[in-house]
Amino acid sequence: MERTCKELNLAELCHYLKTHDDYIILTHISPDGDTLGSAYALALGLLSIGKKAFVVCNDEIPHKYDYFVKAAALKSFDYKTIISVDVADAKLLGSLYEKYSDKIELNIDHHISNTRYAKNLYLDAAASATAECIYDIFTEMNMQITPLIATALYTGIATDTGCFKYSNVTPKTHLIAAELYKYGIDAAEVNRVMFDTKSKNRIELEKMVLETAEFLFDERCLMLTVTSEMQEKSGCEQSDLEGVAAISRSVEGVLCGVSIKQSEPDVYKVSLRTYPPLDASRICGTLGGGGHVSAAGCTLEGSLEKVKAEITAAVGKAFNEYDARTIAD
Amino acid sequence: MERTCKELNLAELCHYLKTHDDYIILTHISPDGDTLGSAYALALGLLSIGKKAFVVCNDEIPHKYDYFVKAAALKSFDYKTIISVDVADAKLLGSLYEKYSDKIELNIDHHISNTRYAKNLYLDAAASATAECIYDIFTEMNMQITPLIATALYTGIATDTGCFKYSNVTPKTHLIAAELYKYGIDAAEVNRVMFDTKSKNRIELEKMVLETAEFLFDERCLMLTVTSEMQEKSGCEQSDLEGVAAISRSVEGVLCGVSIKQSEPDVYKVSLRTYPPLDASRICGTLGGGGHVSAAGCTLEGSLEKVKAEITAAVGKAFNEYDARTIAD
Repeated sequence: MERTCKELNLAELCHYLKTHDDYIILTHISPDGDTLGSAYALALGLLSIGKKAFVVCNDEIPHKYDYFVKAAALKSFDYKTIISVDVADAKLLGSLYEKYSDKIELNIDHHISNTRYAKNLYLDAAASATAECIYDIFTEMNMQITPLIATALYTGIATDTGCFKYSNVTPKTHLIAAELYKYGIDAAEVNRVMFDTKSKNRIELEKMVLETAEFLFDERCLMLTVTSEMQEKSGCEQSDLEGVAAISRSVEGVLCGVSIKQSEPDVYKVSLRTYPPLDASRICGTLGGGGHVSAAGCTLEGSLEKVKAEITAAVGKAFNEYDARTIAD
Repeated sequence: MERTCKELNLAELCHYLKTHDDYIILTHISPDGDTLGSAYALALGLLSIGKKAFVVCNDEIPHKYDYFVKAAALKSFDYKTIISVDVADAKLLGSLYEKYSDKIELNIDHHISNTRYAKNLYLDAAASATAECIYDIFTEMNMQITPLIATALYTGIATDTGCFKYSNVTPKTHLIAAELYKYGIDAAEVNRVMFDTKSKNRIELEKMVLETAEFLFDERCLMLTVTSEMQEKSGCEQSDLEGVAAISRSVEGVLCGVSIKQSEPDVYKVSLRTYPPLDASRICGTLGGGGHVSAAGCTLEGSLEKVKAEITAAVGKAFNEYDARTIAD
């Protein structure tokens, strides 16, 4: 499905939105605050200028987003124009892929890895969140921002930046947040729901996962394990497992966090999180996986003991090289 | 020590700073990012306009603040003018209280509860952090902000707002953050150290604390216990215990989080965190304690079983009243 993808600038994007109508806005699978916040804010904005628009997601939308998803009360109709927001790759549409993938007229996104699958693309890779792009549309088109729209946009920005914590934050991110506050959003409540609320099952799981903690290589590596049994016992769904990999690297002095999640009886997904000079992508590469310098993964087969031994050997090799270099310096 | 305290506006504050010299800047006990970030930024600013200044804290400054504390490399000398920053009450000076409490010329603070112990006070209770006040001084006095100063100010604002998460954040907070980014600060690294780094001991303790989790009153109350034995076994210091109370209320559906920390053999400090309509202050009030609507505490004596029974009864009474009202409605 190699096709020509036309890249639009902001003015062209807004012209496009003004001259089309009857929008269906698609979000990505395992929907997060940014894809949902962006989709609902855009839909509400389009409605406010007399267009028709509604949002579709492959997966059920988690209830924690009700405060803008239910509040928006969008209604479906016979759409004409298919848009996707925050969807870097058509495959991330899930089962909607079959139905829509070759008919997507416009894709609005901020992922540098965007695969250019839509006829038209607005891509701002400097934006911390797609919600920043949607905010720019509101400004450029002079559409009115309501408290509900501001809440959806804030949700998008806050969730994609870990509440302004990560390196994707720019001065513009904070300037937009300052503007959104002026519409009377309850940002503290949004942040409580997004960042400070865990399911009871997750607490159960964390307890079990922390029990598995193994410190290796002079406590510079922390290895955590999540077995299928733990997932069942705690009642955790896949979405409850988010962030377990981050725990493994959050301990003082740890340069390499390893989390091993069982996906099938003898299949384990290994996530690595590293700090320089360790290179997670290189370590996982030796085991048939890949990723980024600071976050990578691989899938290993066999017993848990075998998997642990394999990943431990690969991490140990990286530490040995690092230590040899340090001594040589 | 009831004395006249003169409240200064920003212009008067800056006039004061310009017309005095040889500053010693005091911070509060158990120093946090705001008292330290504010003190070091102010000291560096004063040095940049030809004044002398250094910072003193009653307690040892945690190493995690080295990136601006050590980097500032301030030197002590014979001071003339005593300033305190982010110190709401002279008692929070710790053992420096005796030496300085009645000689404090100027207090710069943002706590509404400020006890007006200094000769001159600059209080901005709308500021999310004292670092916001210090930023205003830089703007008003036209002092140059260096990357180091920007990093100290960002640390103050980020730590006092839970990284822009809490209800004390205003548009101005975000606008200042946007400005500080322009000085090339590594905000993501600051946030990693401040928010995403736990001691190994803390991980050990959390594991043990989660083991004590008791869900009560239809899972609307979560009770966590930290015994002296757990503190010893995990090697946790007092500063490692921060945030345990917050865990108790972070579980979905929980309206009342209770954390019970043993301080002596038969003495327990109980912290309550509640959501409306429960009133933590009222519940703790019935047990001789007090606090705020959403966060309060009390000290109970006796065996752990007795203490648990007492707090459970008080919380149960509050739930009963709440349920009776709900049924009546």
